[in-house]
Amino acid sequence: MPADNFMIGIDIGGTTSAFGFVDRHGVLACEGTLATQAGQPAQDLVTRLCDAIDQRRTALPQQTVFSGIGIGAPNANYLRGTVENPPNLSWGASVNLVELFRQRYDLPVAITNDANAAAIGELQFGGARGMKHVIVITLGTGLGSGLIVNGRLLYGTDGFAGEIGHTTVTPEGRSCACGKQGCLETYVSATGLCRTVIELLAQRRDPSPLREACFSRLTSKQVYEAACEGDPIALAAFDATARILGMKLADAVAHTSPEAIFLSGGLAAAGDLLITPTRRYLDEYLFNPYKGKVKLLRSELPEDSGAILGAAALAWHEVGKVMIKA
Amino acid sequence: MPADNFMIGIDIGGTTSAFGFVDRHGVLACEGTLATQAGQPAQDLVTRLCDAIDQRRTALPQQTVFSGIGIGAPNANYLRGTVENPPNLSWGASVNLVELFRQRYDLPVAITNDANAAAIGELQFGGARGMKHVIVITLGTGLGSGLIVNGRLLYGTDGFAGEIGHTTVTPEGRSCACGKQGCLETYVSATGLCRTVIELLAQRRDPSPLREACFSRLTSKQVYEAACEGDPIALAAFDATARILGMKLADAVAHTSPEAIFLSGGLAAAGDLLITPTRRYLDEYLFNPYKGKVKLLRSELPEDSGAILGAAALAWHEVGKVMIKA
Repeated sequence: MPADNFMIGIDIGGTTSAFGFVDRHGVLACEGTLATQAGQPAQDLVTRLCDAIDQRRTALPQQTVFSGIGIGAPNANYLRGTVENPPNLSWGASVNLVELFRQRYDLPVAITNDANAAAIGELQFGGARGMKHVIVITLGTGLGSGLIVNGRLLYGTDGFAGEIGHTTVTPEGRSCACGKQGCLETYVSATGLCRTVIELLAQRRDPSPLREACFSRLTSKQVYEAACEGDPIALAAFDATARILGMKLADAVAHTSPEAIFLSGGLAAAGDLLITPTRRYLDEYLFNPYKGKVKLLRSELPEDSGAILGAAALAWHEVGKVMIKA
Repeated sequence: MPADNFMIGIDIGGTTSAFGFVDRHGVLACEGTLATQAGQPAQDLVTRLCDAIDQRRTALPQQTVFSGIGIGAPNANYLRGTVENPPNLSWGASVNLVELFRQRYDLPVAITNDANAAAIGELQFGGARGMKHVIVITLGTGLGSGLIVNGRLLYGTDGFAGEIGHTTVTPEGRSCACGKQGCLETYVSATGLCRTVIELLAQRRDPSPLREACFSRLTSKQVYEAACEGDPIALAAFDATARILGMKLADAVAHTSPEAIFLSGGLAAAGDLLITPTRRYLDEYLFNPYKGKVKLLRSELPEDSGAILGAAALAWHEVGKVMIKA
């Protein structure tokens, strides 16, 4: 295959969508962003994305060939090619995004959810290169997860494998947006961290600048900054978050026995504040045969273009398999 | 391959070991058992097993061909061919059982732990035939698990994937033999059920025949019989067990998204007393995209010969792959 083959990687978010042209080594040649306009139908976004892609394509050398399209989108189902009930988009119960793109391009198209795209990105272009069993955790507003098993992304029976964010920490725990109680992502995520801060402010009496913040405006960035200043409430919140994450990652290891777990997303940027104690708790909760054998690492993909690289990696990952063709 | 090919299935237990000759349809032609003699070295057991196999082999038609050997054993590591630190056998840190058998037979040999053998048995000869994503739970003294992913048993990085019995129910919970606290198998297993009964006897005031039992002699069979008679303590113990099992199975589903979960082993024989409430709790704790899609079933392998069938199934399962050859 000539070196000037590219995949089109597309990352669809609730506010902004982005695309880029990515070669097989993970080099991003060109990228663009546009407003998702969540209230409009999916067809509208697809048309605008394709127009923007066609326009940017002219910047590439003429002999450039696109080999396929990879899409990362919320609530995407790889097996069906659909986006189903996306919480932040008015697209209804199910939209076949693969078909919409195939109407425009005679290229193979693959779609998966954001966390799975992050996992494939880590496997193809990041720190998980060459690994066979990996778990990738994305820590943003929620907690997403993608499981690599035997060198391939795990989809399971219905295309929805790897939803560790909705395992139960404690059955009478915090209310989750999914309707359950005590889900991991209600504790371990940007919003989970803020909920923990508020709980600690109520429980403890330490003075803290966070006592001046109101809940609805508190951000994980503020908590991070307070922790960096040595604020005891913020530090305790990170420790509590790390403890629960370490415990549930130990559970995850007892399922698929990965070589490494990667943390990505905004909260992972807290770095040592989160990763160091999580590593300690993970080791504490690990079943003996796994102890000392599982690496906990920060994603090696750049935070700003990681989602596009992940989507493009999905397409490259699928090249050896049967992709849905136009 | 002619129809008179057989695998030798061997099940090694702490007290008794058993073997049988199993064809590719799961028909058991001939079987035998002998005392494991846990205090003796592994070589001793292997010699006695091989002698017994040679002796029983004469009962088969002369054209019979053995295609391989499958072994299910406690703490067995598939990738290394070893049994490591078995809790009930004085075999030391590591014994390469595959090599010991290869010294006697010029046949491919595969080994795995009991729960993995049960999973492969269910896949090849039981209710999981034709399924691609399955979890098999064995409920005995402890709780074992075997995960089938994409139609193959999952071993993970180090050969120890699938230890759901040592995921954490509650971090300050019951002491587990593994050294951790709050492991699933301290609640959901024959011994876990008895511990729950004792706790309930202390908490509640209902009259119950179980108040006459002392803890060290209480068996899950007694609890089962009391539950069948309508004893409220025994019924509450089954319900508490089912609740925790349902919750942790929902977690397991959020990892690998199986089509079905099979329960096998002694406690699964409690049937509706355990399976019906577990099904209800599982559905309650399942993340929405999985609800109504995961079957919870009782193993279809016979309880008395299931372990031999599982070990032989491992060997049949491996035939298409590279088995360790003499």
